[in-house]
Amino acid sequence: MKRLARLAACLLLVIVQACIAQPLPSWNDGPAKQAIVAFVTDVTTQGTSTFVPQDDRIAVFDNDGTLWPEQPLPFQFMFVLDRIKAMAPQHPEWQVREPFKSILAGDMKTALAGGEKAVAEMMAATHSGMTTDEFAAQVTDWLATARHPRFKRAYTDLAYQPMLELLAYLRDSGFKTYIVSGGGIEFMRPWTQEIYGIAPEQVIGSQGKLEFEVRDGKPVLVKLPQIDLVDDKAGKPVGIQKHIGRRPIAAFGNSDGDLQMLQWTMSGPGRRFALLVHHTDADREWAYDRTSEISRLDKALDEAQAKGWTIVDMKRDWKRVFAFE
Amino acid sequence: MKRLARLAACLLLVIVQACIAQPLPSWNDGPAKQAIVAFVTDVTTQGTSTFVPQDDRIAVFDNDGTLWPEQPLPFQFMFVLDRIKAMAPQHPEWQVREPFKSILAGDMKTALAGGEKAVAEMMAATHSGMTTDEFAAQVTDWLATARHPRFKRAYTDLAYQPMLELLAYLRDSGFKTYIVSGGGIEFMRPWTQEIYGIAPEQVIGSQGKLEFEVRDGKPVLVKLPQIDLVDDKAGKPVGIQKHIGRRPIAAFGNSDGDLQMLQWTMSGPGRRFALLVHHTDADREWAYDRTSEISRLDKALDEAQAKGWTIVDMKRDWKRVFAFE
Repeated sequence: MKRLARLAACLLLVIVQACIAQPLPSWNDGPAKQAIVAFVTDVTTQGTSTFVPQDDRIAVFDNDGTLWPEQPLPFQFMFVLDRIKAMAPQHPEWQVREPFKSILAGDMKTALAGGEKAVAEMMAATHSGMTTDEFAAQVTDWLATARHPRFKRAYTDLAYQPMLELLAYLRDSGFKTYIVSGGGIEFMRPWTQEIYGIAPEQVIGSQGKLEFEVRDGKPVLVKLPQIDLVDDKAGKPVGIQKHIGRRPIAAFGNSDGDLQMLQWTMSGPGRRFALLVHHTDADREWAYDRTSEISRLDKALDEAQAKGWTIVDMKRDWKRVFAFE
Repeated sequence: MKRLARLAACLLLVIVQACIAQPLPSWNDGPAKQAIVAFVTDVTTQGTSTFVPQDDRIAVFDNDGTLWPEQPLPFQFMFVLDRIKAMAPQHPEWQVREPFKSILAGDMKTALAGGEKAVAEMMAATHSGMTTDEFAAQVTDWLATARHPRFKRAYTDLAYQPMLELLAYLRDSGFKTYIVSGGGIEFMRPWTQEIYGIAPEQVIGSQGKLEFEVRDGKPVLVKLPQIDLVDDKAGKPVGIQKHIGRRPIAAFGNSDGDLQMLQWTMSGPGRRFALLVHHTDADREWAYDRTSEISRLDKALDEAQAKGWTIVDMKRDWKRVFAFE
């Protein structure tokens, strides 16, 4: 009986220790982790001048390059290419029309030579004409089978483990966590709850126009090719205000496209926090910043350094990058 | 000590009784209240075919005429008129320019003779050019002093007591409650938390374009005159999808402007609920429906009757309309 009691006491101790374990286990104990923990402690400690009521604890996260990778291309773009290939049999005209012709021939360089206009055509072809429910099903189907070219894993396996822990830590500390991405809002919503624990209504992204219609007696929302909001750069604070209607107190990004979101977040009163993920780890992930074609990190890096915002050095600060490591 | 214990026991009893009290005390025990309670019981009873997981318990409410009155004019319009009068000294040109000239002369009939164009000019003059923070302060200041012409009370005193109880009942039952209004999103957000218990991020409404700017070294969002979304009629399901990204399971409105929102809500799978507030009480509030200039209730009333949606007869179903009665 005494042994049983000792065993129970021991078990209890283990459980208690696990519960009071340090947060962010995949983060090395460097300046980035310390800054995060200091911020969360400050805004959650009642009776201090830095305390923030729970309702105002809004944290916004960029997605591509901040919560999961964006190389060799942002994953939504991989979806676009796969959709064009899948839709090609219904579009014989694509065999002779750019940018589709080059995409189908596997020649991305020529396809993208058309610049923004070419990208807009790819987006319109794959992101409009269907209902919102149909599009969500296409995204879900694609994610179930598509594999990342380097890691040979589902894209949704590539969420950064340290960032998943950070999201959970913030929510455990009374934060509402939002995605604020340049990517498409309808592309993210089908899977963010399962992967990030972020509900569809807390996803903000670029948006096309929608039209309400009654098709075969059933109300549907049809995705139109016209763009309502490009939720990038100066569009990010706009997206935040439209959806949330109050200023976040913490913002997380990784590129110049996030700079205005970080500026907007940091310009309010009281204790605030801004963080940039700096991709410095070509072995485990990628290394790129000031001269990158995708997601350049240049002006935002200067401003972060000048203003003392937290910069995550992926190589130094992250014990592991992915859960599967 | 004994007296203290008795006091404590007594206090506990009061609390317990308050907690197990019937919901919706300002509702008469008629078909509307019964339908609401039956719906909430159905979707919250685990192990039944009608159960709905908490995350999917989304309820959307129209505002004007559903949560507070909209007579003699929607309250936001009263704000517009007061703002035009307040701004007039800075706009000498308004003395000779319609619709401002007639508004300043108190001649609403002539002012509104200009139709939609006149209204758009009034909205642009009073709802754009300032930052979002400045506009929120204008709304807050106005609500602090403006009084309703009939009730001689602050507009925010006029929230319908039965609907406040309904909002609380739904939230206590695990629902997320949203406003989906044809009114302006930025006009509602400064006060919905205090009056309805609805946070800014759960307010959806008509929206103008916003522009991110750095003014005097400080990032601001400026309200532009261009319209992004008219959140009325077919715009309501669009607003719901843009903000929430999933279909509500309960919708509450009072006019034809809410019909598509109710159709969209009712067209999904599983147990669902649609309700119309029918203004039938000229003594305590107003009576209007099929021929009203403001917020006509005609097609939606036919469809509600045909489909068995719940129709609140304000005179019959509400014990009291306002908290101050």
